[in-house]
Amino acid sequence: MSLKIGILNISDRASSGVYADIPGQACVALLKEWLTTPVEFDYKVIPDEQAVIEAELKRMADTDSCCLVVTTGGTGPSVRDVTPEATMAVCDKMLPGFGEKMRAESLKFVPTAILSRQVAGIRGKTLIINLPGRPKAIRENLEAVFAAVPYCIDLIGGPYLETRPEVMPVFRPKAN
Amino acid sequence: MSLKIGILNISDRASSGVYADIPGQACVALLKEWLTTPVEFDYKVIPDEQAVIEAELKRMADTDSCCLVVTTGGTGPSVRDVTPEATMAVCDKMLPGFGEKMRAESLKFVPTAILSRQVAGIRGKTLIINLPGRPKAIRENLEAVFAAVPYCIDLIGGPYLETRPEVMPVFRPKAN
Amino acid sequence: MSLKIGILNISDRASSGVYADIPGQACVALLKEWLTTPVEFDYKVIPDEQAVIEAELKRMADTDSCCLVVTTGGTGPSVRDVTPEATMAVCDKMLPGFGEKMRAESLKFVPTAILSRQVAGIRGKTLIINLPGRPKAIRENLEAVFAAVPYCIDLIGGPYLETRPEVMPVFRPKAN
Repeated sequence: MSLKIGILNISDRASSGVYADIPGQACVALLKEWLTTPVEFDYKVIPDEQAVIEAELKRMADTDSCCLVVTTGGTGPSVRDVTPEATMAVCDKMLPGFGEKMRAESLKFVPTAILSRQVAGIRGKTLIINLPGRPKAIRENLEAVFAAVPYCIDLIGGPYLETRPEVMPVFRPKAN
Repeated sequence: MSLKIGILNISDRASSGVYADIPGQACVALLKEWLTTPVEFDYKVIPDEQAVIEAELKRMADTDSCCLVVTTGGTGPSVRDVTPEATMAVCDKMLPGFGEKMRAESLKFVPTAILSRQVAGIRGKTLIINLPGRPKAIRENLEAVFAAVPYCIDLIGGPYLETRPEVMPVFRPKAN
Repeated sequence: MSLKIGILNISDRASSGVYADIPGQACVALLKEWLTTPVEFDYKVIPDEQAVIEAELKRMADTDSCCLVVTTGGTGPSVRDVTPEATMAVCDKMLPGFGEKMRAESLKFVPTAILSRQVAGIRGKTLIINLPGRPKAIRENLEAVFAAVPYCIDLIGGPYLETRPEVMPVFRPKAN
């Protein structure tokens, strides 16, 4: 049985076909570049509707048993940006360090990084991470936190993820 | 119709006349120094009472249509410090990056910066930002985040703010 | 009447005797090294049970009048890690700057620092700070925030703490 990762592109315009689905594809490309563990992707493009986002996050976590779900888009201050609210609504635990680190990383490039409300949290055995919508920012953000992702998945009872250490070294502390 | 910005000095001692209202005046001076767009200020000094603060924030946002409200004071750990609670109570969305960035900036000057509980958030078409009470810290904090404020106000449907780029350059990302 | 500080080691394994209680002892050693004010420690080792943690935090704050309570352990993403939830449940006010600063400090050493969900907050006249479970990280974290702790305790009406300035200088801003 293969390991599953959910990719959820949240965008009114991408889901209605106005935009190409570039952010979701950027996530898949990054994860394929870094991971050596075989992965099956559960991939979906949906509009910025909180109920729809919550339903998809629950399905990817509970029914599809994804160990990791990354979302793109919907994290800004606009009235249609509700990805963090949907994520908080479905998570058992929030991990504030992810948002702090990703914003601090983005601040090296743009002062508007403080407008991102992105969060990460745990639902059951699934780690959910919000990413921004721009491909350049997606790479910067996921690179900033991914070294800690496999160990987090270990801790919540998920599968053992391995990476190409030359492109994305992961860190697992020694047992104490 | 001119653009409005609310300045809310929250202080038991300033509102009872024990202290001069220096923090609120410091905000007005900074905004006049930076902004070229003509602005009308909605200015008030009130005590550290959560219900009063919430009522003023709502009035400035809803009735007075301020695109931005900055508060000063009431963000510490003391029992009378309730500005963040009032702000969270009236906002639709919180923007955690503002508090993180302002505390990180203040930490360059004083280790007690971690005691500030200041937040920022959105109510309708109004951005609300909590600032500390000391004029030196007010400048340090507002300087640290203001480059992102005009774009945030764009995103929530507010007016287009412009600044003197030599004293406060603002940043607006290219549309994606 | 002497000043009291609560030390709460939260660990299923330490409380059942599988592990020695090293984290709690590390906190006591650090505080004895830094503080010159005579202190009495209220010391306890308990399992990762949210109701038990909440009851102990309340007892240390309300009945035992500790001016400071430091917890160790239970701040990660695992299903048994509930220290932040228990702390948030008993606090009147949260101080997000503590968690931000401690995670930023730990990030200098390990990328998995973002997995720590540690918080700090105020219950009545008691400051509660979550620390991680590893002694090395305990020192790094408490060192990163302790300069602000005595002033925080001043502000919430607690006793006046003094330290050995050569090992832990504290900072108290001038009255404004």
